[in-house]
Amino acid sequence: MALTGKRKWLNEVIFGTDTPAGKNFDVFLIWAILISVALVLLVSVESIEVHYGQELFILEWVFTALFTIEYALRIYCAVDRRRYIFSFYGIVDLLAILPSYLALVFAGAGYLLVIRLLRVLRIFRVLKLVRYLRDANLLMRALWQSRRKILVFYSGMLVIATLFGALMFVVEGPGNGFTSIPKSIYWAIVTVTTVGYGDISPHSPLGQAIASLTMLIGYSIIAVPTGIVTAELASELGRERSLSRCDNCSRAGHDMDAEYCKFCGYKLAEVEELDEDEWSRGG
Amino acid sequence: MALTGKRKWLNEVIFGTDTPAGKNFDVFLIWAILISVALVLLVSVESIEVHYGQELFILEWVFTALFTIEYALRIYCAVDRRRYIFSFYGIVDLLAILPSYLALVFAGAGYLLVIRLLRVLRIFRVLKLVRYLRDANLLMRALWQSRRKILVFYSGMLVIATLFGALMFVVEGPGNGFTSIPKSIYWAIVTVTTVGYGDISPHSPLGQAIASLTMLIGYSIIAVPTGIVTAELASELGRERSLSRCDNCSRAGHDMDAEYCKFCGYKLAEVEELDEDEWSRGG
Amino acid sequence: MALTGKRKWLNEVIFGTDTPAGKNFDVFLIWAILISVALVLLVSVESIEVHYGQELFILEWVFTALFTIEYALRIYCAVDRRRYIFSFYGIVDLLAILPSYLALVFAGAGYLLVIRLLRVLRIFRVLKLVRYLRDANLLMRALWQSRRKILVFYSGMLVIATLFGALMFVVEGPGNGFTSIPKSIYWAIVTVTTVGYGDISPHSPLGQAIASLTMLIGYSIIAVPTGIVTAELASELGRERSLSRCDNCSRAGHDMDAEYCKFCGYKLAEVEELDEDEWSRGG
Amino acid sequence: MALTGKRKWLNEVIFGTDTPAGKNFDVFLIWAILISVALVLLVSVESIEVHYGQELFILEWVFTALFTIEYALRIYCAVDRRRYIFSFYGIVDLLAILPSYLALVFAGAGYLLVIRLLRVLRIFRVLKLVRYLRDANLLMRALWQSRRKILVFYSGMLVIATLFGALMFVVEGPGNGFTSIPKSIYWAIVTVTTVGYGDISPHSPLGQAIASLTMLIGYSIIAVPTGIVTAELASELGRERSLSRCDNCSRAGHDMDAEYCKFCGYKLAEVEELDEDEWSRGG
Repeated sequence: MALTGKRKWLNEVIFGTDTPAGKNFDVFLIWAILISVALVLLVSVESIEVHYGQELFILEWVFTALFTIEYALRIYCAVDRRRYIFSFYGIVDLLAILPSYLALVFAGAGYLLVIRLLRVLRIFRVLKLVRYLRDANLLMRALWQSRRKILVFYSGMLVIATLFGALMFVVEGPGNGFTSIPKSIYWAIVTVTTVGYGDISPHSPLGQAIASLTMLIGYSIIAVPTGIVTAELASELGRERSLSRCDNCSRAGHDMDAEYCKFCGYKLAEVEELDEDEWSRGG
Repeated sequence: MALTGKRKWLNEVIFGTDTPAGKNFDVFLIWAILISVALVLLVSVESIEVHYGQELFILEWVFTALFTIEYALRIYCAVDRRRYIFSFYGIVDLLAILPSYLALVFAGAGYLLVIRLLRVLRIFRVLKLVRYLRDANLLMRALWQSRRKILVFYSGMLVIATLFGALMFVVEGPGNGFTSIPKSIYWAIVTVTTVGYGDISPHSPLGQAIASLTMLIGYSIIAVPTGIVTAELASELGRERSLSRCDNCSRAGHDMDAEYCKFCGYKLAEVEELDEDEWSRGG
Repeated sequence: MALTGKRKWLNEVIFGTDTPAGKNFDVFLIWAILISVALVLLVSVESIEVHYGQELFILEWVFTALFTIEYALRIYCAVDRRRYIFSFYGIVDLLAILPSYLALVFAGAGYLLVIRLLRVLRIFRVLKLVRYLRDANLLMRALWQSRRKILVFYSGMLVIATLFGALMFVVEGPGNGFTSIPKSIYWAIVTVTTVGYGDISPHSPLGQAIASLTMLIGYSIIAVPTGIVTAELASELGRERSLSRCDNCSRAGHDMDAEYCKFCGYKLAEVEELDEDEWSRGG
Repeated sequence: MALTGKRKWLNEVIFGTDTPAGKNFDVFLIWAILISVALVLLVSVESIEVHYGQELFILEWVFTALFTIEYALRIYCAVDRRRYIFSFYGIVDLLAILPSYLALVFAGAGYLLVIRLLRVLRIFRVLKLVRYLRDANLLMRALWQSRRKILVFYSGMLVIATLFGALMFVVEGPGNGFTSIPKSIYWAIVTVTTVGYGDISPHSPLGQAIASLTMLIGYSIIAVPTGIVTAELASELGRERSLSRCDNCSRAGHDMDAEYCKFCGYKLAEVEELDEDEWSRGG
């Protein structure tokens, strides 16, 4: 059903981005988010906390109150409340205020407020960065298309990590830092992903030989997800091009950042509506 | 020859996945495997071992007995015993129980029981995750197709590692941790694969210059397997698409995750039979 | 307007590369640049500085004076002064002398003279390494084409780094080196990019589990930019080929390093003019 | 001119691989090479050297004498001596014996004998691993085709490393391990290549911020060579396929590992002659 009166107006301001009021509201909101996240980072720096802890604490609660009211209003004026609450943005909006209240019970939970960062995703809608959105969607869809391949790939990698971890635990033993199989698995993952902290590293010649093998395996494994995503990206890129038709001459094959039809010079339509569900799917 | 009576029934339960009994058996089996692997991980954690070592030890033998009986039954009721014993799954099934008995002789061998994890591969067949299997096969075939290129690539890398290792051993010497050429080769592999533990690192200016060269080489080498696999994956993806024909309109070119023919909407057949040998080959 | 007399002659010598004088000037210039950069490197080595500090200091000012005069002359004899000053090369020429003067105020600024290195880019024009330029442009254009995708990708990565950083700060805490969220974000970036210094690394089992997750995420993220650039490079390569037409038979599709038309053997024209703006754009 | 008598026979034995004698000679040679390299590795291990130094020393000279005689004979019986001496194999054969003699003057030079490993490349010709050779050539040609792009890419990376190195030297200073700009450049390369030893790492917040930037840059740079090589590999793969024509039906497009024409089943010719010069070029 359509909204009326106050709710309708609120809805336009809070959810809409077309009216000046709606745009200003979102811009103000994004700044509020960025500042509140910056506050959290500052609080975590001890030297700052000892000096300005009091002020920062108050400010944090001001923002929390602000976001709580906003969340309440969003629920109040949403067209379909259930749908909003369980939408990607709805959940993020909730997560963005919960930590403050959790912090009253568990100290430290307050730092999780950085999750507010996710709310900044709204910036895409506000600034109508359609082309950026298109690119973001392209990446998202490519990753989404290859989700199963990547899952299979991860299962395989975890199995490898477990097997090599156990092997190293037997070979190197607690004496060289491989104090347990779980920890050895951690080492295997650190190695296969080529991160290589060096907090745990083999000392026995045999251990180093096995480690070398692990690295070489990880080295060729690194190729797999790249191959997957690249292949998907290429096909997505092609699909995207074939999708963007000119409304005038209805010919397709325009570059992703093309604004005018390269055949008849007609302004190309923006494909926003398809962006929204992309996001909720991608999120 | 076809099986009869008890053997036939056992075969359906143990190897089959179509009858309820067969499915339940496999599901139960997978849980048993995962739990037994978890046990091995726990045993390796000293703090846990000292408290529950006794219980864990008994449980481990319970599972080993269980799997030993299962293995015997599989041999008994297999259609072609020789074929099963030397198949990928057959060997894994054996390896999954051997370590327990080895542990009686060599302490520590028991940790190798994590190899049981490989048995979980059966999950694909149980849950009929055909599409996952297709993706897994795609990856396997891509890797399989490029096996020779990757072998050539590794030989080249080992030669490079040996040459640079020897060079660094001469330049840096035992004083800076390069105590022997084999160890220097280990360092070279750690460097070329960009793992970089830092347990051994050059200190002399000349050594650091050579190390930089090694890294840059490794950096462009990293491109090679990625290129190989990507190229293969792309071609495999194409082949896969061209293979999946619609039984109704017999037109090909369907996406890998398509369930219905995009031309006539007819349900697409699943390509499982081709998965099996894939696995045995890929294993 | 066209230049006349002295200015015209100077312009030919300083900007031109066709006259012998112009060529010699540029060659001399490049050697001067490389030597002056080498000097800066030497000055930074303490053991050298203590012995030859005096001489190096004088030499440095000689080069600075030299480049200052050259910069003045370039402005004097430029066809369009405003255009030169704000061009890529113009700004680099200025930055190449500023640090020396800044060093009078802020000690250490002198080391920034290495920026002179950028001036060596001129070498492309001097040696007329057209084909190298073409390749450079190809890379530049590929990166340029995918600038938005890469930007989106970085925003995503920073968000991930911030979230995981905060999480690790809560889990590991200052005791294990995660002294503040900003520092934890630094750790997250070090991990996600698979650099893995190991100066900060998780110690608690939970922390190591989260770190493993971070690595696996970074590991699949690493595929994204590669996929982007590869796709762009491929399409760029295609465009490049289709661009290079033979002036004689006007057929396209020649390889990038082809010097003669593969259809009629006619010498292919070099595409330099298109290189210039590439650079200014790319720079 | 054609060889006669003893020289002809020697040539067949030493260079040829078709006669039984020739094949046996090469097989024997390869074993000799591998063993002599293994000896060098063993000598470098102190614990072994102290016990068996005497024996190893003698064995090493036996092999050196062996290879010296062989090298002399190769020159003697080569069809075109000048061509052999300056060919890829000719130079390697010389380098494979020089270090022993150098070791008489400079201690430690003996370890460079590992260069003998390069001689094992002959194995390709002996075992007629044509398909492996094809793959090796494919990789070689792909790298060769993209040599200029990769060169441009490295120049760019060195410039970046120098600039960031100098910047970090100014920001972090000798106090945090950045003792000189050259060393800082070493750090920058270690970082940009994502090796990350951690022997030098930033400590100041600003330094860590710059380091993070360096990593992110290196992270997107890592995509470039991959993109280059992948693109080249794909095109090479295509060219290779279009090259391999069937002698019978003269249709092309066979897979690289195809042994029979997929159109008429005729045995496909092996393309060895083209391999040789590939190698000398690639080497």
